[in-house]
Amino acid sequence: MAGNSFGQALRITTAGESHGPGNVVIIDGVPPGIELSVDDLMVDLNRRRPGQSKIVTQRAEPDEPEIFSGVFEGRTTGTSLAILIRNTDQRSRDYSDIKDKYRPGHADFSYDAKYGFRDYRGGGRSSARETSVRVAAGVVAKKIIAAAFGGEVLGYIVQVGDIRANIEDPAAVTMEQIEKLPSGEPNIVRCPDHQTAEQMVDLIDEIRKQQDSIGGISEIVATGIPAGLGEPVFDKIKADLAKALFSLPAVLGVEYGIGFDCANLRGSENNDYFEADDDSQITTQSNRHGGMLGGITSGQPIVLRAAIKPTSSLPLEQPTVTREGETTNISTKGRHDPCLLPRFVPMAEAMVAIVLADHWLRWKSQCEK
Amino acid sequence: MAGNSFGQALRITTAGESHGPGNVVIIDGVPPGIELSVDDLMVDLNRRRPGQSKIVTQRAEPDEPEIFSGVFEGRTTGTSLAILIRNTDQRSRDYSDIKDKYRPGHADFSYDAKYGFRDYRGGGRSSARETSVRVAAGVVAKKIIAAAFGGEVLGYIVQVGDIRANIEDPAAVTMEQIEKLPSGEPNIVRCPDHQTAEQMVDLIDEIRKQQDSIGGISEIVATGIPAGLGEPVFDKIKADLAKALFSLPAVLGVEYGIGFDCANLRGSENNDYFEADDDSQITTQSNRHGGMLGGITSGQPIVLRAAIKPTSSLPLEQPTVTREGETTNISTKGRHDPCLLPRFVPMAEAMVAIVLADHWLRWKSQCEK
Amino acid sequence: MAGNSFGQALRITTAGESHGPGNVVIIDGVPPGIELSVDDLMVDLNRRRPGQSKIVTQRAEPDEPEIFSGVFEGRTTGTSLAILIRNTDQRSRDYSDIKDKYRPGHADFSYDAKYGFRDYRGGGRSSARETSVRVAAGVVAKKIIAAAFGGEVLGYIVQVGDIRANIEDPAAVTMEQIEKLPSGEPNIVRCPDHQTAEQMVDLIDEIRKQQDSIGGISEIVATGIPAGLGEPVFDKIKADLAKALFSLPAVLGVEYGIGFDCANLRGSENNDYFEADDDSQITTQSNRHGGMLGGITSGQPIVLRAAIKPTSSLPLEQPTVTREGETTNISTKGRHDPCLLPRFVPMAEAMVAIVLADHWLRWKSQCEK
Amino acid sequence: MAGNSFGQALRITTAGESHGPGNVVIIDGVPPGIELSVDDLMVDLNRRRPGQSKIVTQRAEPDEPEIFSGVFEGRTTGTSLAILIRNTDQRSRDYSDIKDKYRPGHADFSYDAKYGFRDYRGGGRSSARETSVRVAAGVVAKKIIAAAFGGEVLGYIVQVGDIRANIEDPAAVTMEQIEKLPSGEPNIVRCPDHQTAEQMVDLIDEIRKQQDSIGGISEIVATGIPAGLGEPVFDKIKADLAKALFSLPAVLGVEYGIGFDCANLRGSENNDYFEADDDSQITTQSNRHGGMLGGITSGQPIVLRAAIKPTSSLPLEQPTVTREGETTNISTKGRHDPCLLPRFVPMAEAMVAIVLADHWLRWKSQCEK
Repeated sequence: MAGNSFGQALRITTAGESHGPGNVVIIDGVPPGIELSVDDLMVDLNRRRPGQSKIVTQRAEPDEPEIFSGVFEGRTTGTSLAILIRNTDQRSRDYSDIKDKYRPGHADFSYDAKYGFRDYRGGGRSSARETSVRVAAGVVAKKIIAAAFGGEVLGYIVQVGDIRANIEDPAAVTMEQIEKLPSGEPNIVRCPDHQTAEQMVDLIDEIRKQQDSIGGISEIVATGIPAGLGEPVFDKIKADLAKALFSLPAVLGVEYGIGFDCANLRGSENNDYFEADDDSQITTQSNRHGGMLGGITSGQPIVLRAAIKPTSSLPLEQPTVTREGETTNISTKGRHDPCLLPRFVPMAEAMVAIVLADHWLRWKSQCEK
Repeated sequence: MAGNSFGQALRITTAGESHGPGNVVIIDGVPPGIELSVDDLMVDLNRRRPGQSKIVTQRAEPDEPEIFSGVFEGRTTGTSLAILIRNTDQRSRDYSDIKDKYRPGHADFSYDAKYGFRDYRGGGRSSARETSVRVAAGVVAKKIIAAAFGGEVLGYIVQVGDIRANIEDPAAVTMEQIEKLPSGEPNIVRCPDHQTAEQMVDLIDEIRKQQDSIGGISEIVATGIPAGLGEPVFDKIKADLAKALFSLPAVLGVEYGIGFDCANLRGSENNDYFEADDDSQITTQSNRHGGMLGGITSGQPIVLRAAIKPTSSLPLEQPTVTREGETTNISTKGRHDPCLLPRFVPMAEAMVAIVLADHWLRWKSQCEK
Repeated sequence: MAGNSFGQALRITTAGESHGPGNVVIIDGVPPGIELSVDDLMVDLNRRRPGQSKIVTQRAEPDEPEIFSGVFEGRTTGTSLAILIRNTDQRSRDYSDIKDKYRPGHADFSYDAKYGFRDYRGGGRSSARETSVRVAAGVVAKKIIAAAFGGEVLGYIVQVGDIRANIEDPAAVTMEQIEKLPSGEPNIVRCPDHQTAEQMVDLIDEIRKQQDSIGGISEIVATGIPAGLGEPVFDKIKADLAKALFSLPAVLGVEYGIGFDCANLRGSENNDYFEADDDSQITTQSNRHGGMLGGITSGQPIVLRAAIKPTSSLPLEQPTVTREGETTNISTKGRHDPCLLPRFVPMAEAMVAIVLADHWLRWKSQCEK
Repeated sequence: MAGNSFGQALRITTAGESHGPGNVVIIDGVPPGIELSVDDLMVDLNRRRPGQSKIVTQRAEPDEPEIFSGVFEGRTTGTSLAILIRNTDQRSRDYSDIKDKYRPGHADFSYDAKYGFRDYRGGGRSSARETSVRVAAGVVAKKIIAAAFGGEVLGYIVQVGDIRANIEDPAAVTMEQIEKLPSGEPNIVRCPDHQTAEQMVDLIDEIRKQQDSIGGISEIVATGIPAGLGEPVFDKIKADLAKALFSLPAVLGVEYGIGFDCANLRGSENNDYFEADDDSQITTQSNRHGGMLGGITSGQPIVLRAAIKPTSSLPLEQPTVTREGETTNISTKGRHDPCLLPRFVPMAEAMVAIVLADHWLRWKSQCEK
């Protein structure tokens, strides 16, 4: 009953810490015959990787995965697929500062309260380092939904601090827009509104210089999703997607479609009306409902947003207490993300893709003729 | 792999439709020896019940539960506990209007897409009627956490349309304030800011007369929760709580603590600093983190908010299509909730209590000495 | 983490006691569109029913099920399907004799050790009465495998005491042979070797007159099962079938194919050799392997045997102790099964069918193209 | 819904193949603070290891585990614990013989039927090589039950071919007797009846020279187990133990206590009568029930037996077919186990210990005061 597994038909189980030998994911339920290589995995791992730009942490972790089982002659066999990513940046360090002090905003205190002690090296299991293997698993999930129904999941940044992007149609955003600027340079903040992206980079850079950090909002969109995925009544797809996103570090809020703004609306303003196209294909005229009705996909694009808090680790000195409750100060030297958002994108995409692949396989089990 | 179960150590499984014989929940993992009676169940069932006030649906469902198994001589036996609630308002009706038409905002279309056909009587399984047995299960969960550590879960309304309540300290709100006005009259909107409550009632009443509906926001607070509950890395308590709330009908957003407002904050503004009291008991000076750090409870009150959309069923005529894609209109005559919020409160409390009881039993399994 | 659920893709959850209001099963994951009626359920419920012949218990329980949810207009909807069976024989009785005494061979002592107290009315949750709803669920499972691939599950008796039947080809046994004698009379012992059946009935009748009970062996055969069902490495189909049978009361042993006799064989004697028919369809020349290789079905009939202990409740007086450890005697007056085997058959068929339907749906999820 | 996980509160998930990079297990739910080292793991891994004696396979696999996560400063942290065992004997080999031919008694054909193709290198996922990490996980489980209640699990051989050992009291057998002969030499067949052990070794050696293999029966005994473990109604401890043993390769039968011999007994002969000792501690006078009543432990030693088929791989030439159904012959050159029993013992102990540790943690969750 510990919580290191996720999903039903497609099920991932992870282990690993930030400063131990590495991280591992076992993916169970993968359909046989899917082509998979280390190069496939590197695409998203490189998007999550530290050191990829000036606005993320400058740690040097190459994140080279090893496909440990479940792939034979380049294709998945259907048996459990394991992927390892070793920690390379494990140099002997002095952890005395964080060993006995509780870093504000981190899980140090709550882990101690839970287990009685903790692996204090850089967060141990509570470090975002564990998401590396989630991203690897997400690549497998993306392949499943792409092959099954042409599904695609894209994430991007819509807000950093008080700077908001203007995204007219979430379903029209492309990977190209997210990853590259019109100049061909990398879009390091992953905001597809390129003018706003520039302002976001400036803000993050300024915050970084102030030894502080800043929060933001990411939007994730899934397109090509057939109507009918999701399970009444607890495993509604909105419930599983929310759990998936909230399982990521630093997420304080999730909404879909119109989201919290629904509070201000009347039913007659909020309802999306059904219509049929020339082929009698039924859809809705608008998508305030965010692609899910009654917790089941409607065929419209799924649109989600997650609120990410500012990085808790700060170079700035902050007050705290020791394990024994004595007042002290703490500061995190160097190598932190001044804003978590750019590296959050591939993590969120991975988790959303895993939920969609899982629900696709669940639908196949019960409902496919 | 269908989704009608929730929880691990405390696990509920439900079945039932709005217009079939009734609804049933099986609760597995209940500790033996807990006193439980039908009267205990009625407390929260009456708060969820239709017809309880002028601002909720006027359907007549007495919601009388039968404890079907798992209780002997007034105490839980530890074996699976079943509770039935029969539907009494099952009069033969004419469903021809909704049989072939897709109600906007409802699951009619997505259920048809999933299963090929559906129980079209009043929403069938997608009706909020299924939450009646969740509320009954929530009573059991509330008893578990009260006995184990004095935990309490309270929900209330903080926003209806553009009317927002002013709640200074969520942890100080009492059941008395939620359920009663200073006059002793029932607080039918369940907003503990009683001046605002009055305005909310007026707004809902006005909306009802306009044959429309309105959305809102509910806040749920859990107090007395020990530090250390929640499981890395997927079953973070924030993830399970979010799934629990999103599994309820009409929820479009969930946030905890500072929530979406974290996007605008800097790390130095957002972090809650640890301090120790005279007994070296460690806590935080503030609670922007909403009672969970790293997905594990911190000992601070858990504070959650859920955004609820306006009721989709409207007496107003709305455009839609038939199953065959032909354009038509639909209106829901009488007996709908003009605002879902007042009856949402006990549902949300139930789901939050179930998650907390589940995680308590999970903690006991692994971590109790 | 209590244990009242079984299966993954097709998942049953049960509750109920022998002398409470009744028993209930929720079946989750049932494909939509399967025709299901109370009459369908009665077929196997009548085979499990007390009072069906002179060699089983003479209790009067009509076992009339109510389909409580998940069926609409005679067909499964795909949502959770609940079936209730009320206890009718609940007359007020004097339980003082078994309240404080531990019946030999029963779960009275172990339940007290586990939970601290127990529902002492006729076994409570540990009574075989709970299998009534498993049999109902088994009817649904049988329909799933019949529709999907023409699969059929049949059980029968091969041994009572030292009387062994001679079954030449398990896969050739028919329901007709199991249920009827050549004379057209009911085959009350359910042994398809009709000459031996007569001797078995005589033995059981004699044992009954001696106020004693007798054990035996049941064989269960599944035919029409496609190759490829079962999951490496823990959910081998042989593992899930064994769990299913051992979850039934009184089962002390399970074997498949050649079973325990494999201990005496050499590899060259035990291996079944592959061959191909004219259509290059591959099968084995013999079936010592019992239809499963590497825990995955081979396409050969699945053949299982379960050893059932003699009924523990005896009219004969037996020594025991009270809850306080004082020496005493106990005897169970009237109404017990002198041999559990005839009524075991539908229970075993149900559990085997549930495992096969579950693994079929699991196979569909992952492997169906 | 693939099947590579086992257990609820203590949950293991495995991946790996016989000739890929290696095998890995993730163990979730391990209580924090348990001392664990590679040396601890080696004790049982050496008992499972190929090449340990003349009567087992002569492959050279050192089976050196790496503790990959979940242990910090020599103690378990409570987070997911991963153990890797790399395959070292991966030399490039010619698999052409088994690539297209179905080995009799193996999973080659059924895997092809399931997945459409297979990793044909030495059995891939269906190889007993995957049990190496189960044995490692078993060491952790043994530590849990030893610390919690002094529980111990021991396995040994009671039959090889037609040679049966005479074990007077299963609960009195010691690890010393199982592993060593009176002479101090290793007891390579692991039969604690040392005179019979010698005959067994001679028989296996003879069978080996004949290029054949032989089956047998192993007995597993768990002592020190408190009354009250196991969950009604599906997760009876007898059901979970049977599943655990049947999940191991080559197991064709499982029985406990009196086992299949119960068929021949009357109730008055089979029932074990309760008695109380001087401290009013209640137990049974005999243990035909094998330590479980109603599927819940009784406090008596748990006694199980598993029937193991003769090794399917034979140096002897055997008839078979190719994937295309053409008749051919196959023989497995060298390096097979002439009898699986000696190496089965640590695998069976591991699986039984995992079930007991799991049920202990489940009991703690629900029933501990």
